[in-house]
Amino acid sequence: MITRTWCECCVRLTFSKFFKPSFNYAYRKNFHTLPVLFRANPNWGSNKLHRRVKLFFKLNAMADPKVEDVLAPLRASVKAQGDFVRQLKADGAPELDVKKAIAELKLKKKILDDKEMELMPVSAYFDRAKMEDLLKRRFFYDQSFSIYGGVTGQYDFGPMGCALKTNVLNAWRQFFILEEQMFEVDCSILTPEPVLKASGHVDRFADLMVKDTKTGECFRLDHLIKAHLEKIMSDKKILENTRQECENILTRLDGMNKNELQEVLVKYDIKSPLTGNPLTEPIEFNLMFGTQIGPTGNIKGFLRPETAQGIFVNFKRLLEFNQGKLPFAAAQIGNAFRNEISPRSGLLRVREFTMAEIEHFCDPNDKAHPKFTSVADYKLTLYSACNQMDGKSAEVLTIGEAVKSGMVANETLGYFIARIHQFMTRIGIDEKRLRFRQHMSNEMAHYACDCWDAECLTSFGWVECVGCADRSAYDLTQHYHATGVKLVAEKRLPEPINVSVTKVVPNKGAIGKTLKSDAKIVCAKLESLSISGVLDVEKQLKDTKQCSLNVDGKDFLLTEDMVSIKTGTEKKHVEEITPNVIEPSFGIGRIMYSLFEHNFCMREGEETRTYFSLPPVIAPLKCAVLPLSSNDQFVPLSKQISVNLLKLGVSHKVDDSAGSIGKRYTRSDEIAIPFAVTIDFDSLQTPHTVTLRERDSTKQLRIPVSDIAAIVHSLTSGISTWEEESSKYPSFEQQETTKAS
Amino acid sequence: MITRTWCECCVRLTFSKFFKPSFNYAYRKNFHTLPVLFRANPNWGSNKLHRRVKLFFKLNAMADPKVEDVLAPLRASVKAQGDFVRQLKADGAPELDVKKAIAELKLKKKILDDKEMELMPVSAYFDRAKMEDLLKRRFFYDQSFSIYGGVTGQYDFGPMGCALKTNVLNAWRQFFILEEQMFEVDCSILTPEPVLKASGHVDRFADLMVKDTKTGECFRLDHLIKAHLEKIMSDKKILENTRQECENILTRLDGMNKNELQEVLVKYDIKSPLTGNPLTEPIEFNLMFGTQIGPTGNIKGFLRPETAQGIFVNFKRLLEFNQGKLPFAAAQIGNAFRNEISPRSGLLRVREFTMAEIEHFCDPNDKAHPKFTSVADYKLTLYSACNQMDGKSAEVLTIGEAVKSGMVANETLGYFIARIHQFMTRIGIDEKRLRFRQHMSNEMAHYACDCWDAECLTSFGWVECVGCADRSAYDLTQHYHATGVKLVAEKRLPEPINVSVTKVVPNKGAIGKTLKSDAKIVCAKLESLSISGVLDVEKQLKDTKQCSLNVDGKDFLLTEDMVSIKTGTEKKHVEEITPNVIEPSFGIGRIMYSLFEHNFCMREGEETRTYFSLPPVIAPLKCAVLPLSSNDQFVPLSKQISVNLLKLGVSHKVDDSAGSIGKRYTRSDEIAIPFAVTIDFDSLQTPHTVTLRERDSTKQLRIPVSDIAAIVHSLTSGISTWEEESSKYPSFEQQETTKAS
Repeated sequence: MITRTWCECCVRLTFSKFFKPSFNYAYRKNFHTLPVLFRANPNWGSNKLHRRVKLFFKLNAMADPKVEDVLAPLRASVKAQGDFVRQLKADGAPELDVKKAIAELKLKKKILDDKEMELMPVSAYFDRAKMEDLLKRRFFYDQSFSIYGGVTGQYDFGPMGCALKTNVLNAWRQFFILEEQMFEVDCSILTPEPVLKASGHVDRFADLMVKDTKTGECFRLDHLIKAHLEKIMSDKKILENTRQECENILTRLDGMNKNELQEVLVKYDIKSPLTGNPLTEPIEFNLMFGTQIGPTGNIKGFLRPETAQGIFVNFKRLLEFNQGKLPFAAAQIGNAFRNEISPRSGLLRVREFTMAEIEHFCDPNDKAHPKFTSVADYKLTLYSACNQMDGKSAEVLTIGEAVKSGMVANETLGYFIARIHQFMTRIGIDEKRLRFRQHMSNEMAHYACDCWDAECLTSFGWVECVGCADRSAYDLTQHYHATGVKLVAEKRLPEPINVSVTKVVPNKGAIGKTLKSDAKIVCAKLESLSISGVLDVEKQLKDTKQCSLNVDGKDFLLTEDMVSIKTGTEKKHVEEITPNVIEPSFGIGRIMYSLFEHNFCMREGEETRTYFSLPPVIAPLKCAVLPLSSNDQFVPLSKQISVNLLKLGVSHKVDDSAGSIGKRYTRSDEIAIPFAVTIDFDSLQTPHTVTLRERDSTKQLRIPVSDIAAIVHSLTSGISTWEEESSKYPSFEQQETTKAS
Repeated sequence: MITRTWCECCVRLTFSKFFKPSFNYAYRKNFHTLPVLFRANPNWGSNKLHRRVKLFFKLNAMADPKVEDVLAPLRASVKAQGDFVRQLKADGAPELDVKKAIAELKLKKKILDDKEMELMPVSAYFDRAKMEDLLKRRFFYDQSFSIYGGVTGQYDFGPMGCALKTNVLNAWRQFFILEEQMFEVDCSILTPEPVLKASGHVDRFADLMVKDTKTGECFRLDHLIKAHLEKIMSDKKILENTRQECENILTRLDGMNKNELQEVLVKYDIKSPLTGNPLTEPIEFNLMFGTQIGPTGNIKGFLRPETAQGIFVNFKRLLEFNQGKLPFAAAQIGNAFRNEISPRSGLLRVREFTMAEIEHFCDPNDKAHPKFTSVADYKLTLYSACNQMDGKSAEVLTIGEAVKSGMVANETLGYFIARIHQFMTRIGIDEKRLRFRQHMSNEMAHYACDCWDAECLTSFGWVECVGCADRSAYDLTQHYHATGVKLVAEKRLPEPINVSVTKVVPNKGAIGKTLKSDAKIVCAKLESLSISGVLDVEKQLKDTKQCSLNVDGKDFLLTEDMVSIKTGTEKKHVEEITPNVIEPSFGIGRIMYSLFEHNFCMREGEETRTYFSLPPVIAPLKCAVLPLSSNDQFVPLSKQISVNLLKLGVSHKVDDSAGSIGKRYTRSDEIAIPFAVTIDFDSLQTPHTVTLRERDSTKQLRIPVSDIAAIVHSLTSGISTWEEESSKYPSFEQQETTKAS
């Protein structure tokens, strides 16, 4: 039945997807052993599992070649277009032609991506509406201010969403700040205009929109045109040349400028889709929220659109804190704001969001990373720009190979890509639904010279959750130009070099005699002249035997006897360099949304029993304490266990509400609590014992009360595993459903 | 020499202040035993300590009665005025008279407070400039965007300030969220106008200001008038009646309205103090930052001025999350924003700041707290409104006494006051410089019915760091009125009551016959009528034998045969109540500033060696790892120790920079690192050992490398104490200064 050879990687990939909602976490964690076991012993496992494993191999063995048959022509079409783009670039074709070709490449890529996604088996098992119902019902998050009608693009995290967020951020701190000894900072959100002018946000951080001339309703221009043309094309009676024209515009839409878009608006006489009213001309709408700082109205400010700028403007202080040495990394967790024109897709596109950003400052000529060897053999899925242009899929390789081949630009970028991957999988992102996609050259932000996005596969498609960009020296240079404050580090030269130096030497006696009380400031000025200042003095003296000097707004005339020019050599031990910046930037809300999708499960055959299989390290609460019934006899034990958990800092919830134990397990599963301690009538016997239930397997152990807090602590902080504890304590076999109180 | 009997409390109070900067943390922790030791054995202790203890008793024994002599007339004057206010209130005097009397009471109180502060010995030992230098030099925090000139009232936290903040917030979460099982939420910062209109912020959250008519420069009106009148009064040649008039205005300033202040402006012809230009009339300046949400410009929004409103608008969801039961508490940590007119005094008055707020929702008729007995005997310093009016000092008493006597309004308020006190002292606030001051009735915010501020004594005087208010049902009621959404809880009645109910019963047959397809919606409407709707139908039928009914914008005429009115009784098991809210609200920046002041120390006789004696639990980093020199032999041990610390999650810093070990201790003390592990030449012998140095005592122990990480972990997480470890390991006596590498 198994008709093809499975490399382990393929098995892992498809197997985990196939079994995701049907088998529990413990099985999934061991999925790579299942096919091996199956091949070794076809009778292994429960009947149901057995049937499913068979079906899995059958389906995949058949589906695989069929899928490739469908995809082959699409891949070829992308590759042809990719080659065409390369050719145009090589020929130095006009920019507009390149742009158009790239836009078409993107369209073909999108068709390929969509088809590939469509043929994946995973989506069949995921029910977004069910998940959203659970998220809303147990208030993980919900729309802000909804009793006032709400505002789109704003969400409030309820108790479980907030605890999850806190745990994700603490894990992030542990993983990056602590392990990499980074400097975490916490900077202002309100940012004065000149800072964001320098960073390019005031001029370039904008989308085009049009307004309904009567109601003032706004529409994002590209979305509007796309919807209008698609509507025209959906009419089966349209002429072929109209259809082609529409297609042509859609292909080029991303690369069109304001005037071109305006022409489309006019040509198709596009009106407001809501009212039919005429529309304004395209308006550049800056996505930053503006405000006034202070009462005068003179200091224009914005809510920061990213946290990064706060780190750049503090570069000097941070370098000094690191005693002047490179490399070092600073990090910041905080909120940023973008005034989206029409936010949609839930947590994925919002107006305020939490970011966690790292800025790693390093020598532009040395982007090696001292810890790179520790990750060089780490395997992950990379989707290079080259593969994208060739219509190929993402590929699994080690980060060492990727850096060696030049696919990833340097070790530091590679190190962070690997670390991001480790972090994402540790907190519960499914590694089969995680890839790193390289930006193609036309996608890159204005400041970046290489960029890889960690993308998670969700029911919305591949979602960018972490960006990892080499921002080069862009930001520090911009802020230097805007302020005149040098943002550089000193680098010790391998050996000192001699540089020739020209200086102005004041004759203090002569100057004092002539200028009296002004002599001091004039001498000081002469000694602190910049190179161009010195050259100017030298030239004036040569040409006119005297020179004029402006000090604090006052002009002085200096004659030949007052100054002399001396040239010599000086030893230089250091050179000044503007550091480059590697920036991993995490969108916390998007990561959380992906975590929800990747961990949403249904109990086999019980569609209403949905839960989140979040790993204990980030689960909102670590443990439920459940007295079997409201019997007073259970109270002292329940209190004692709660106090002991508290002492160890284990977050938990005592649920002594009415309802069968099965119902309360379901409630606790819904909010992703990984372990439940149940106090039953056997607990009242000495020595007191309780049962401990694991959420994903629903298996239970019988454990002494004296040990329970320590065991839950060690299970939830990664010191021990459920398997280890299972070997130490007897399992408890009673069925959940028979335990109704 | 000891001329008075010292109650333990007095000794603790003055002793700790007196010795603060001179003796280290370990001594201070044991300060209450020192005087006892001293009395039992006058030769106890080092010579220096001995002399200091003697001096302490001498100074205090003499100073004490003298201080009271000075304060007595001021106390009497406050009391007289306080009695006058009480009398006015009892007599029902006009509001204006009461207001004036209160303003004068406040002035007299301020004079008393200032004198009391002046006579305290503590300030003599604190050098703010030195502390600020350290904070800036090691980048705990500094002005935001200073390379762009900076904006007043905005600060960035550097690595150590940020780590301290994170640790304070995590301690807060552990202490409140986890221990009290609160629901933490994370709500939007951008808030639409109607929400803040309902909360009262749009109308009332304002200060009065005037503008320079030519330059536009703004001045806070009360500050401006105060400065102007004080300048007039400082002229020794002014007439007595002018002086008295100025004094009279100053006394009444706080209670003056816009028109009265305008009259003062005109009468004294006050101009801009900077330019001499004329000023505008007083303008109400709302302290919220306004912005537009979305592109249309139609949704006006503000940056939230407090985090509380996010909790109130989510009340229904939170109540449901708690399965409909009261009491419960929700909490939120987040940033809030206030556009101060002219912010000053560093971290104490800023434009954006982090708050941690708790909203405890409870039955308005039952504010008992189940855990109150656990804190009833807890002692703290309370400064009641009554004592303030009587010119008395704050007093130390148990919270149980305070609630019993009615000084603190209810158990829940009392419970939180005690918990706030416990938290503040646990993180390092000096309990001798911490008091709870009750708001006098005219100080209370518009929503509060009782309010106590936790105030910390700093070099700026007493600073409000935590507010603890009973907000009653104000906010929930306001949001209900604004939205029509009931924000109530259901309370089970002790026993069901019978209520009479009047209902409209539709005669479905007759209605169906007449209204055909509309019958269904009309019947549904009739059955869901509100009480007033039923009464209306009843009245119409009685008056006209028919009634009209509007359903979905359509009018229907119903005749007598189609409807009947039935009256009966129904059993009611629950009643609806609007919960009251007790709100502890923490200003994190202010707490951090107080922590800096309360923990700033200088080494005896070494003025340049300044440090912060922050408790390990909140210290930014827990441990320094210091190889004695840059000798390569030390590297493996240093790495091993770092890895082991990491495994236990202990934040640390490996400092292998050049510089003597003494210099590196000083650098690590400066950033408050409580423990330093030093690898010296003895460490290279097997079994490997290192020294462990405690920051405050500078004492050292010699400890095996195999134990060191676990010991540092247990010391910094409160599992063991330095004294305990000292009894287990040999002390290391070599002097710091002799250890230069």
